[in-house]
Amino acid sequence: MTHELLIAHVKKLVDPRPEDLNLFTSKLREVVVTKGKFLIQPDTHVNHEYFVVKGCLSAYYLDKKGNKNIVQFAIENWWLGDFDAFYNGVPSKLHIEALEDSTLLAINYDDLQILFQQAPIFERYFRVLVTSAFISLRKRILSSLGKSVKERYVEFCESYPNIEGRVPNYQIANYLGVSAESLSRARRKMRALKKT
Amino acid sequence: MTHELLIAHVKKLVDPRPEDLNLFTSKLREVVVTKGKFLIQPDTHVNHEYFVVKGCLSAYYLDKKGNKNIVQFAIENWWLGDFDAFYNGVPSKLHIEALEDSTLLAINYDDLQILFQQAPIFERYFRVLVTSAFISLRKRILSSLGKSVKERYVEFCESYPNIEGRVPNYQIANYLGVSAESLSRARRKMRALKKT
Repeated sequence: MTHELLIAHVKKLVDPRPEDLNLFTSKLREVVVTKGKFLIQPDTHVNHEYFVVKGCLSAYYLDKKGNKNIVQFAIENWWLGDFDAFYNGVPSKLHIEALEDSTLLAINYDDLQILFQQAPIFERYFRVLVTSAFISLRKRILSSLGKSVKERYVEFCESYPNIEGRVPNYQIANYLGVSAESLSRARRKMRALKKT
Repeated sequence: MTHELLIAHVKKLVDPRPEDLNLFTSKLREVVVTKGKFLIQPDTHVNHEYFVVKGCLSAYYLDKKGNKNIVQFAIENWWLGDFDAFYNGVPSKLHIEALEDSTLLAINYDDLQILFQQAPIFERYFRVLVTSAFISLRKRILSSLGKSVKERYVEFCESYPNIEGRVPNYQIANYLGVSAESLSRARRKMRALKKT
């Protein structure tokens, strides 16, 4: 049941055989995180990557001064994790916190390697996914250079459809690297324009 | 001859059959860019990705105010390109300029798709590569938060071994998002420590 969303996501990007999908779903484990709880905390060993079936989470980094820096939000249909920790076996650096009660599907490192060996179509699936994540991340960096708050918020809404109202304004501002006040102003103007 | 470095790079990450490598090398075209010339310019169609066999290049973005923002350096054994333009067919946003006379191997989009179909081991090769590029990019963002100039420069030298002396100090400072003065200071201190 829970697998349907992920299977649809896979099929949008690649063309797996039924046995590839069966192997994949046999490796998945359902994980539930209630609002305010953590999926990952810093300085821990990370053995899983996660696909969001329902809910909303944020991944953030606390710098030496204790400032929170949000690096990713994840809603339905997003993968998330601490990829450096997962792929390179180093201690995690991120907090991943549930902003809503969330249901995820987890795959562990060894199972993912078996999947790549036995159902190489998933090499393609994850190659396409991570290429697109890389492009988005680079665009986000470029976007912080010379684009207006409004332009950056519009791009954000395109990346995260339906996130409006689910994440507090100040957290979106943190992610975009702008002040909460200037984001509120930009959002008010956009709403006023929509009404006219 | 020119292919040897790239074949060694492929073999470090995956285990291709001889026929996979033959297909791959049959798709590569050698490109030479002399110092100061451009491999890619903004608002153009990008049909190739490039592997550096010899030389040094920088990819940068000119923002609305005309400020140069260096997003990547590439030396021997690095892939580079404007990935958004290449994969999504949108006009390029980057300048890619040769900082030294450079020799590259280019693969075009259609040939890469054929390669993925006929030699799927390259799905794995590029998945591993782009995953590692994504992790590096995210680390670079986190690194700009709360890390000292010295720490950031040390990480930079780990990513780009042998780049010292090939790229001017102010360009490395631009890439790291620090002032040229503070980078010079950090580099002087590190040299002084090495001598003692």
